[in-house]
Amino acid sequence: MSERNLPSALVITEGMLHTDDAKTAHGLIRGTERFRIAGMIDSMHAGKDAGEMLDGRNRNMPIYASAEEALQKAGKIDYCIVGVATVGGILPPLFLQIISTCIKNGVSIVNGLHDYLNDKPELVALAKEHGVSLTDIRRPKKREDLHFWTAEIFSVKAPILAVLGTDCSMGKRTTCRMIRQACAKEGIHAEMIYTGQTGWLQGGKYGFVFDSTLNDFISGEIEHAIVSCWKETQAELILLEGQSALRNPSGPCGSEFLVSGNAKLVVLVHAPKRIHFEHLPEWGEIPSVRSEVALIKAYGSEVIALALNTSNCTREEAFAFQRAYEKELGIPVLLPLEEGVEPIIPVLRSHLKTRTV
Amino acid sequence: MSERNLPSALVITEGMLHTDDAKTAHGLIRGTERFRIAGMIDSMHAGKDAGEMLDGRNRNMPIYASAEEALQKAGKIDYCIVGVATVGGILPPLFLQIISTCIKNGVSIVNGLHDYLNDKPELVALAKEHGVSLTDIRRPKKREDLHFWTAEIFSVKAPILAVLGTDCSMGKRTTCRMIRQACAKEGIHAEMIYTGQTGWLQGGKYGFVFDSTLNDFISGEIEHAIVSCWKETQAELILLEGQSALRNPSGPCGSEFLVSGNAKLVVLVHAPKRIHFEHLPEWGEIPSVRSEVALIKAYGSEVIALALNTSNCTREEAFAFQRAYEKELGIPVLLPLEEGVEPIIPVLRSHLKTRTV
Repeated sequence: MSERNLPSALVITEGMLHTDDAKTAHGLIRGTERFRIAGMIDSMHAGKDAGEMLDGRNRNMPIYASAEEALQKAGKIDYCIVGVATVGGILPPLFLQIISTCIKNGVSIVNGLHDYLNDKPELVALAKEHGVSLTDIRRPKKREDLHFWTAEIFSVKAPILAVLGTDCSMGKRTTCRMIRQACAKEGIHAEMIYTGQTGWLQGGKYGFVFDSTLNDFISGEIEHAIVSCWKETQAELILLEGQSALRNPSGPCGSEFLVSGNAKLVVLVHAPKRIHFEHLPEWGEIPSVRSEVALIKAYGSEVIALALNTSNCTREEAFAFQRAYEKELGIPVLLPLEEGVEPIIPVLRSHLKTRTV
Repeated sequence: MSERNLPSALVITEGMLHTDDAKTAHGLIRGTERFRIAGMIDSMHAGKDAGEMLDGRNRNMPIYASAEEALQKAGKIDYCIVGVATVGGILPPLFLQIISTCIKNGVSIVNGLHDYLNDKPELVALAKEHGVSLTDIRRPKKREDLHFWTAEIFSVKAPILAVLGTDCSMGKRTTCRMIRQACAKEGIHAEMIYTGQTGWLQGGKYGFVFDSTLNDFISGEIEHAIVSCWKETQAELILLEGQSALRNPSGPCGSEFLVSGNAKLVVLVHAPKRIHFEHLPEWGEIPSVRSEVALIKAYGSEVIALALNTSNCTREEAFAFQRAYEKELGIPVLLPLEEGVEPIIPVLRSHLKTRTV
């Protein structure tokens, strides 16, 4: 589908576009194959371009001060997407007003918070009145749509690579997308399994929303996504978007990908300037990359590259960290935003080769 | 509450009491402070005593051939409990008939399967007609009753010990209960956090049902259970009932206890004669105890004792495994069923001491 035919969407980040909580919006700015992003609604940053704000690259995504302004200036809009993932998953009150205005103007709403729009009777009534839909991406699937793990994963012949991180909101999904794109350029057919709401918003066909899945079904949903993807696409390489971090105390995650998803290869994302989990000293210090690599090895998987999130680093610091980690770990260290992820291609090729022999 | 005052309950295991799937029933036979178990319904094993079948010890728990027989002979019955945890969590069809008969005789039903009784309109109508309740223990809690992780766990001063295993259905919960009882005898105030339906059925006050909790809330529910327990009871030691195994591919589990539950101490349960995860060769081999101890160490926690599930071992083999693992690992190796768990007490005391200095 060309971008022209995609449904058009506004993204609400009201007052939060500059924060990590707006990572859903950041992902949509970086790229989606499900929507054409027509702009943002965020009065704090109105007048700027969202792409320029994110990484200095103008993407013709204006930031509007209000729903009214956006709906007046952005052309025909099909959807309005809640662009934040707040701690606690609660819909910020200001968002509710914006959502109501959109509904009254015939715009459907897509929401990835745990706070479901379909549980708010006044919104449901308003949506009905105006003939629009309310989609709660994170609403758990019904029992009959969930899968148990069956061991079928061991029939997948393509190598499976998980992009894990040493903390949340570090760029795991973005790194994963970039690796897929780099593979495509090099003629390697890689497919990506999304595991978060943003992955779905970006157009992912195979995957599930990890944190709104009942724990008993996580392993089966991972397996089902990988096996379906591999059977239907015959991809040479399967990429898994990781979630959280193996030792993030607020939600340790990762062993599911390594064990149930049989990901024997790992790209680890790390932010050298981030000291504490989710920036909160009381949550404890993020362990060293070396110890994370050892933990992953204890699970029987191999970290084949480190990718650095160079937030708060000068360009010089970024390259200095790259050299230091390469020396310490003896594996390629990627700087996705500075250099792209292409240096991983030869390593991937060697693993593809090993498998086909 | 004395056992006399507990509500009386029958347990249905129809045709399955001898299988691992009946571990819910096995737990109830071993002991519960929530019900007085009046007998089993299982036509395959009718006439025997459930305790004798489990471990040779008569507990005056007759096995009846049918609901009709049980209701006629077992005296007044308040509850009937579904005593199995089937793969897939589906209610076996034969159970449905037994449940209907119980309801028609004024008996309330307790069910721990994912297949909820309250989703079956005919049962709901029948229960209403006869004025009895249908309790689905595994029905997920509502959003407002769930907790996010907050780091309050780090304020708990008592050591936290997780009982983990190298596979499912190995005796983690039973080992955990035995340690609590051994502590009580020795004057150590230990409390146990349940994490499965059977733990609740056995009368656990603090805990939650792990596998029917949305993944995003697991860490917070663990923390909330531990913090509440510690604040309200001022226990000297908190014991956590583990679930599954760190590397069980059908549902890897354990890091939540170590990381979010801050369990720095671990008792690891292992069955030396079990080769494959859940006895299924296609699921892969259970890794060595040594590698499991190393994996737990990579998470920053310490295995202070191994407990052996001596299923399929002769008595001589059991003691030989004990000597061999003690030599290999240099930690106490418990044989809970042969010798009890008392040998762990001195090790626990040393950790309690360290903490209070």
